Amino acid sequence: MTYNLLKGKKGIIFGALDNKSIAWKVAEKAHEEGAIFVLTNTPTAMRFGELDELAKKTNSQIVPADATSEKDLDNLIKESMKIFGGKVDFILHSIGMSLNVRKKRVYSDLRYDYFNKTLDISAVSFHKLLQTCFKNDAISEWGSVVALSYIAAQRTLYGYNDMADAKALLESIGRSFGYIYGREKKIRINTISQSPTLTTAGAGVKGMEGLMDFTERMSPLGNADAEECANFTVVLFSDLSRKVTMQNIYHDGGFSSMGMSMRAMRMYERSLDCNDCPDVED
Amino acid sequence: MTYNLLKGKKGIIFGALDNKSIAWKVAEKAHEEGAIFVLTNTPTAMRFGELDELAKKTNSQIVPADATSEKDLDNLIKESMKIFGGKVDFILHSIGMSLNVRKKRVYSDLRYDYFNKTLDISAVSFHKLLQTCFKNDAISEWGSVVALSYIAAQRTLYGYNDMADAKALLESIGRSFGYIYGREKKIRINTISQSPTLTTAGAGVKGMEGLMDFTERMSPLGNADAEECANFTVVLFSDLSRKVTMQNIYHDGGFSSMGMSMRAMRMYERSLDCNDCPDVED
Amino acid sequence: MTYNLLKGKKGIIFGALDNKSIAWKVAEKAHEEGAIFVLTNTPTAMRFGELDELAKKTNSQIVPADATSEKDLDNLIKESMKIFGGKVDFILHSIGMSLNVRKKRVYSDLRYDYFNKTLDISAVSFHKLLQTCFKNDAISEWGSVVALSYIAAQRTLYGYNDMADAKALLESIGRSFGYIYGREKKIRINTISQSPTLTTAGAGVKGMEGLMDFTERMSPLGNADAEECANFTVVLFSDLSRKVTMQNIYHDGGFSSMGMSMRAMRMYERSLDCNDCPDVED
Amino acid sequence: MTYNLLKGKKGIIFGALDNKSIAWKVAEKAHEEGAIFVLTNTPTAMRFGELDELAKKTNSQIVPADATSEKDLDNLIKESMKIFGGKVDFILHSIGMSLNVRKKRVYSDLRYDYFNKTLDISAVSFHKLLQTCFKNDAISEWGSVVALSYIAAQRTLYGYNDMADAKALLESIGRSFGYIYGREKKIRINTISQSPTLTTAGAGVKGMEGLMDFTERMSPLGNADAEECANFTVVLFSDLSRKVTMQNIYHDGGFSSMGMSMRAMRMYERSLDCNDCPDVED
Repeated sequence: MTYNLLKGKKGIIFGALDNKSIAWKVAEKAHEEGAIFVLTNTPTAMRFGELDELAKKTNSQIVPADATSEKDLDNLIKESMKIFGGKVDFILHSIGMSLNVRKKRVYSDLRYDYFNKTLDISAVSFHKLLQTCFKNDAISEWGSVVALSYIAAQRTLYGYNDMADAKALLESIGRSFGYIYGREKKIRINTISQSPTLTTAGAGVKGMEGLMDFTERMSPLGNADAEECANFTVVLFSDLSRKVTMQNIYHDGGFSSMGMSMRAMRMYERSLDCNDCPDVED
Repeated sequence: MTYNLLKGKKGIIFGALDNKSIAWKVAEKAHEEGAIFVLTNTPTAMRFGELDELAKKTNSQIVPADATSEKDLDNLIKESMKIFGGKVDFILHSIGMSLNVRKKRVYSDLRYDYFNKTLDISAVSFHKLLQTCFKNDAISEWGSVVALSYIAAQRTLYGYNDMADAKALLESIGRSFGYIYGREKKIRINTISQSPTLTTAGAGVKGMEGLMDFTERMSPLGNADAEECANFTVVLFSDLSRKVTMQNIYHDGGFSSMGMSMRAMRMYERSLDCNDCPDVED
Repeated sequence: MTYNLLKGKKGIIFGALDNKSIAWKVAEKAHEEGAIFVLTNTPTAMRFGELDELAKKTNSQIVPADATSEKDLDNLIKESMKIFGGKVDFILHSIGMSLNVRKKRVYSDLRYDYFNKTLDISAVSFHKLLQTCFKNDAISEWGSVVALSYIAAQRTLYGYNDMADAKALLESIGRSFGYIYGREKKIRINTISQSPTLTTAGAGVKGMEGLMDFTERMSPLGNADAEECANFTVVLFSDLSRKVTMQNIYHDGGFSSMGMSMRAMRMYERSLDCNDCPDVED
Repeated sequence: MTYNLLKGKKGIIFGALDNKSIAWKVAEKAHEEGAIFVLTNTPTAMRFGELDELAKKTNSQIVPADATSEKDLDNLIKESMKIFGGKVDFILHSIGMSLNVRKKRVYSDLRYDYFNKTLDISAVSFHKLLQTCFKNDAISEWGSVVALSYIAAQRTLYGYNDMADAKALLESIGRSFGYIYGREKKIRINTISQSPTLTTAGAGVKGMEGLMDFTERMSPLGNADAEECANFTVVLFSDLSRKVTMQNIYHDGGFSSMGMSMRAMRMYERSLDCNDCPDVED
C-alpha cells in the first residue's frame, strides 16, 4: 500500500550502505510515497556498499559526504539545494560507528581517540548537519529531521560499549537543536529508538543473536524490522506529525515498556531448570 | 490533503461532544482518510452535545454507552461488530471527568466517592473497554487503540487536581493491556499526551488561559491543536505505525522536552521587572 | 553501624507484617537510628503477623488502622499525635494487595470490584493518609513521607497484574500531594522503587523466583534486600535529603538502568543453546 | 548536626573553586562527617580559586590535575593511594565548562573545537577518571562515585547551550561505567541533578537570575542550595545507599516533577495582565 504521504517532498538520506540498512528501506519507502531525495554516504562506505543500485532504483542523485566534515556537509547541502532548486523537507541521519567496538576495546579500556571518533561520527555529526542546514537556511518551514537511535541511550546493554554514550549525546543534540530549529523555523527534530536490527553495521555487536532472541520474546509485538522502521520514519516526515518534536519515540514492538514477559521468562527459566547444561559463571 | 490512510478500516470513537472536541476532529479526519466508524458517548453527553450532526457528516452510526458500564460496553462492542459485519481496526478513548474539579474540591480536600468516580470514568473505563473487546475478540490483528492523555501524568500542574492521577492510571492501563493484547492478538495500545487544548471539557480547568499562553511560549512549535492531534491519531491507527505499542507519545510542540524557552522567560521576566504591578504572594 | 540519623524524630510505620517485611526492617533501623514511632496495620494483618514482637523490640506502641478507612486514619493520626505530644516527622506507607492476583484472575479477566479494591488499598490509601495528616496538620515542617513502589509502575511484568496500575497511581499521588504538601508545609513525599523482595506478601507473585534470579543477574550490584531498603528509607527520613521531593528513586542495584547484562545474557543463552531442553512455546 | 556518616572513609573531591562551589560544600560536609580526602582542581582553577584555604580547613592535601589528561589523572590516583595508604571510598566529579558559552556562541553557531572541549572537560573527563581508577584498582568495594549534573540533560533550557549535551553525555557515562564497575567491583556510580545554583561558574549562564526566580517558584520546596546538595552527596557516599547505582537523582526541591505551580503561574500572569509593560517579542 502507498499513500502519497511524501508527494512533492524533497529530502536527504544519510547512511544507506546496502539493502539491509534501515536508511535503504527509508529511501525505498520515501520513493514509493512520492518523495525525491539525495542519497549520501562517505566515500568509503560507498565503495563497500551498493548505493548506485539504490540511486538507480529510486531515481536519486548521490552526493558523497563525510558527515564529520563541515566542508563536505556544506557542499552536500548546497548541491542538494541546487538539485532541488530550493529547500529540502526532510532529512534522515542514520550514522554510527565505534572503533572501540570494532577493535574490541572494552568499556573500561577505551582509547580516547577512538571514543572521540565515536562521538564525532555518531552524534556530533548530527549537530554539524543541522548547523550547516541552519546556516544555509536549507530546510523548509514545517520540515522534519529524524535520527536513528537505540535504547542503549537510556539502559546499558552489555557489549554496546561507547555507542550507548554516543546515542545519548545524539538524542540530546536532537532536543537542543529541536528547540532552536522549532523556534526559528518551525522545523521538527526527533529520534526513533529502533529495535535491534540485523544490518550489516549492527552485525558487529557482541552477542547480537542472543540479544535479538531476547528482545523478540520480550516485545509483545516482536522486534520491529528495518522496513517497519522505514514506514514509521515516513510518518514522521509527513505533514501528519507536525507538532511532534524533540521526542525520542520507541519503535520497538513494546520492548521499552516491558520489565519481563511470559515468553522471555519461560526461555530463561528453561536454563534455570536445566541440570545438564554447562555452568554459567556468576 | 488526504491519503486514504484508513481506507477500509473500521473503528469506534469515544468522546466527541461538540466540534471543539479532539474526538470530533479525529472522526472528521478518519472519515476523510477512508474509515468507517461508530460514534459513542454517554446519553447525557449526547443530550448536551451535537453528536447527531457529526454522525450525519461522517456517515456514521451512534451507539450510546456509559464507558463505566460493562454492560453498555458489551452492547456497544456487539452492536459495532454487527454494524461492520466483523471486527474493528481502531478505537479512540477520549474520556475524562473529575467531580472534584467541577465541585472545586482542592487536592488536599478530595471527596473519595468523587475520586473513585474520576478514576472510574477517566481510567478504569479504558480497561473495561479493552477487556470487553478482548472477551468479544472484537479487534482485528494489527488493530490499534489510542487513548488521550496529558503531561500531568508525569508532572504536577496546579489545578489539574485528581485528573493527574487518573491520567497516570490511564497510561499504566495502556501499557499493561498493551502487553497482553500485543502478545495475544498483535494489537497495539498507545496514549497520546496532547498539549492543553481548548475543548469544552478543558475549559473548566483553573487558569487554563494563562497556562496555554505559557505552554505556547514554551513549546518551540507552539501548542498542538485538536486538528493536529487528529492527524497524529490517524497515523497511529494506520498500518505505518504497527510496531509502536505501550508508548505515551507527546504531541505537544516540544513542550515536554523544554526546561525554559526564551519566549516564556521574556514574558516571565517582564513581570519580575515590573515595579507598578500588584504584589504576588510568595 | 548507627549514626543517630533520626535522633528525636517521631514517625508512623505502616505495613510491618513479619520479620521479612520491608516495613519491619525500616522499624528496626529507625529504632537504631534514634527514632520513636507508632506501628500500624490492619486488624487482620495483625492477627496473622507478629507486630507485638516488633513493638516490644522497638519500644513502640501499636495503633491498628485500616488504611482505606478515613475514620481509622483520623483516629490513628490523632492517637499518634497524642502519644508523641505533637507532630510526626516521618511516615512509611508500605501497603499493597490485589484480590485479582490472589484469586488468579488474569489481567484480561479482572473483576472490577477487585480492581477497585486493589487501587483503594494500594494507592488511594496513600492519598487518604496524606489528606488526613494535612487536615490534622500532623506532620512537622521538613517532615518526610515515603511509600514503597515497584518498577512495574513503568514497565510491565508478566504476572504483576493490576498491582502495576496501582503502583503507577501510587507514584502519581506521591507527586500530586508532594506539590501541595511541599508548597504549604515544606514536607517532602517520595517513593522508593525497590528490587523484587522476598516478603511474605511478595511470595504470592507468579514466577517470583525465576524473576528474582533474572533481576539478580541483570543488576550490577544484585537485588537490593529489605534491610538495604530500610537503610535508604532512613536516609530519606533524615535531614540530609530535605530538598528531594516528588521523586521515585530506584533502589534496585541498577536494574532499572539495564537493558541487558553479561550475566543474564549468559544464562539466557544457555537455554538457547540447549538441545535436550523441553520446548518453549512461542 | 553531624552523624559520622563517613567516618574512616577516604575520598577525592574535584572541582572546588571557592566557597560558593558545591564541591567546596561537599568537602566541608565530608570533613564534618569524618572523611579524609584529597582535593584536586586544574592548576588554572587553583590560581583563581582559594583551594589552599579549604585544604587547611579540612586538613586535606591538594594534588593538582587536569581532568582531561590521562597522565594527570593517573598521577592523582597514584598519589592519593599513596597518601591514604590504600584505596579510596568516594569520589566527587564536579566539573564543567563550555567555551561556546563563554565566548557567546549560540547553539546554532557552535565552534566544534569548542564543542569537543566542552564534551571533553565536562563529560569525557568522567570516563577518564573512572577508567584510571579501574586500571589502578583504586576504589574500595562498595565505594561510591558521584558526578553533578543538571536537568538540561533531559529538558532544553534557553542559554544552557552545549552544556546540555555534555550533561546528557555525562549521565550516560555514569550509567555505562556504573554497569561495569558494579559488576566487577561492587562500586556504585550516580549523578545528582541539582537545582540551578549560584556558583562562580554558574554565574556565567545567560538569564541565571530570572531562571532561578522561576525555578524557585516552581519548586514546592524552593531551589536546593549548595549546602543541601552537599548533604545529599554525603548520603550517596555513605553505606546507607549501597544499592543505588546508575541513577540520576533530582535534588531540586521538586522542580523536575512540576508542570506548573501556583506561585510561578501568578508571577507569569502578572506579566500577562500588565498593560503598561513593554512589549515582548513573539
